[in-house]
Amino acid sequence: PDAGAIADATARQAQLTKPAGSLGRLETLAIWYAGWRGDARPQVTRPQIAVFAANHGVAARSVSAYPAEVTVQMVANFQAGGAAINRLAETYGARIDVVALDLDRPTADFTESAAMTEAEFAAAMASGWAAVDPQAGLLVAGEMGIGNTTAAAAVAAGLFGGQAADWVGRGTGVAGPALAGKIATVEAGLARHRDALGDPLEVLRRLGGRELAAMAGAILAARHRRIPVLLDGFICTAAAAVLEAARPGALDHAEAGHLSAEGGHAALLERIGKTPLLSLGLRLGEGTGAVLALGVLQGAVACHSGMATFAEAGVSGA
Amino acid sequence: PDAGAIADATARQAQLTKPAGSLGRLETLAIWYAGWRGDARPQVTRPQIAVFAANHGVAARSVSAYPAEVTVQMVANFQAGGAAINRLAETYGARIDVVALDLDRPTADFTESAAMTEAEFAAAMASGWAAVDPQAGLLVAGEMGIGNTTAAAAVAAGLFGGQAADWVGRGTGVAGPALAGKIATVEAGLARHRDALGDPLEVLRRLGGRELAAMAGAILAARHRRIPVLLDGFICTAAAAVLEAARPGALDHAEAGHLSAEGGHAALLERIGKTPLLSLGLRLGEGTGAVLALGVLQGAVACHSGMATFAEAGVSGA
Repeated sequence: PDAGAIADATARQAQLTKPAGSLGRLETLAIWYAGWRGDARPQVTRPQIAVFAANHGVAARSVSAYPAEVTVQMVANFQAGGAAINRLAETYGARIDVVALDLDRPTADFTESAAMTEAEFAAAMASGWAAVDPQAGLLVAGEMGIGNTTAAAAVAAGLFGGQAADWVGRGTGVAGPALAGKIATVEAGLARHRDALGDPLEVLRRLGGRELAAMAGAILAARHRRIPVLLDGFICTAAAAVLEAARPGALDHAEAGHLSAEGGHAALLERIGKTPLLSLGLRLGEGTGAVLALGVLQGAVACHSGMATFAEAGVSGA
Repeated sequence: PDAGAIADATARQAQLTKPAGSLGRLETLAIWYAGWRGDARPQVTRPQIAVFAANHGVAARSVSAYPAEVTVQMVANFQAGGAAINRLAETYGARIDVVALDLDRPTADFTESAAMTEAEFAAAMASGWAAVDPQAGLLVAGEMGIGNTTAAAAVAAGLFGGQAADWVGRGTGVAGPALAGKIATVEAGLARHRDALGDPLEVLRRLGGRELAAMAGAILAARHRRIPVLLDGFICTAAAAVLEAARPGALDHAEAGHLSAEGGHAALLERIGKTPLLSLGLRLGEGTGAVLALGVLQGAVACHSGMATFAEAGVSGA
């Protein structure tokens, strides 16, 4: 980030017509945004939502309440404008790009082999990198993929250790024997790839999926272009955590948008040192939690860049 | 609220293209809004922010970090568009009406007599009632008034008991001896009006202020017109709590927008049984926390009323 912009933005905050600190998190959020944009008085221009969709070999193991064909059906719904992310994008003025990643070729079942070959993994990361609009002023990486909370739980456990049960949640709504089976699937994947768990990118290739790899690639591209990122829920955060595990500080350009109701999300955010802006009980993915946080960011930056100073308004200071 | 609209909105939520419950609080929020609007598929039209400003006799007792003339200066700032609430109103598309209540006539010091005469109290409540646009689809009641966290703490203690120190917070930023003096002022007010603490409206008249009375009047008018309300921070909630204390259920048309950093707010929300939508550390007032929550409500209602159903989108159910 730009140290000069941060210093100027911090100085500006102290002059605005409000008691010092009284806008709380809006103040630190605006200064963070100013730093990454290199502009002490920025606007949130051209926010972009990139939604990545993929299919998973482990979906055949009944880890989801929904059949795998829902992934392609939901991609059509995104394209037709009927999904939650479409309505939220419209509400907060963000553009959506939907990237379907080889939906007719699910990843391999990670209990049997690596989810992706090295070529497949590189192609998925590159798709994510290429999807980022260089002119975007903010990025949200969203996802859709039946079975992907299972992949994300395996990635989280692979990166940070602990038991599979610590990271597996209800996803779209599994419970009872199906939840036990989901935990067993993650345990089998961790056992199968035990030799690779020290290497974050290898964890992502073996236990993740194309949309997780693409999100990691997109968040990396955003860093390269100094585009701030709002992280979405459990799956997005698992993908992002790969970058942080590989290189601490890699997510300094990202804030956590929303604490998901999915079981392992709070622990995952703690591992990467992020405090979520919102906690509204969503567990949908698509980028929905992060886009709600975009609404907050827009308010924070509007206050920061648009409020009058004490001097401009003729208001007495403390 | 309209039971038919609630039933229809609840049925609609179950048909939208998402796992049941996966939009969390957005779902219950949209159904609540539909019920009060009497429309199972509503839009958030014409949101209104009414900002009430007043001056307080207790401000002469050094209970604030700012001099009392800041109230009138900030009213000018609201009218010029330079305050935080102006920038947030623009961000989320709300109209602002600023109502200055006899700024050249502060209330009486409540440690010596009732803050308002019966005529003054009635006039302030009537100003609040009259400020509500009958065509508004949502109301936020905001405030500005140097010294008004002291009045709000006194009202909260008068309604719900406990020690003055339980309800007094830092306000605009008082600490040390000034904070002790603020607590002593509230204690003196409670002692002075001990005979009236069983009557919520009398508590508001004796210990409150014109902007608190106006907010209570506005929230009551919104109920009469079935306009949903988002509550702001400590002062707004103290005013609203008078209505709930006078008649349980009086705030069913209101949701809590934001948990303020002001000390007593969490306890006050608990007393009226409300869970805040946001918790972003603001402690500014003006309606700012509630308007940020308006951004969330707009997203919730956009999803509810605009998403495709499983049947419309050809998506398989669970």
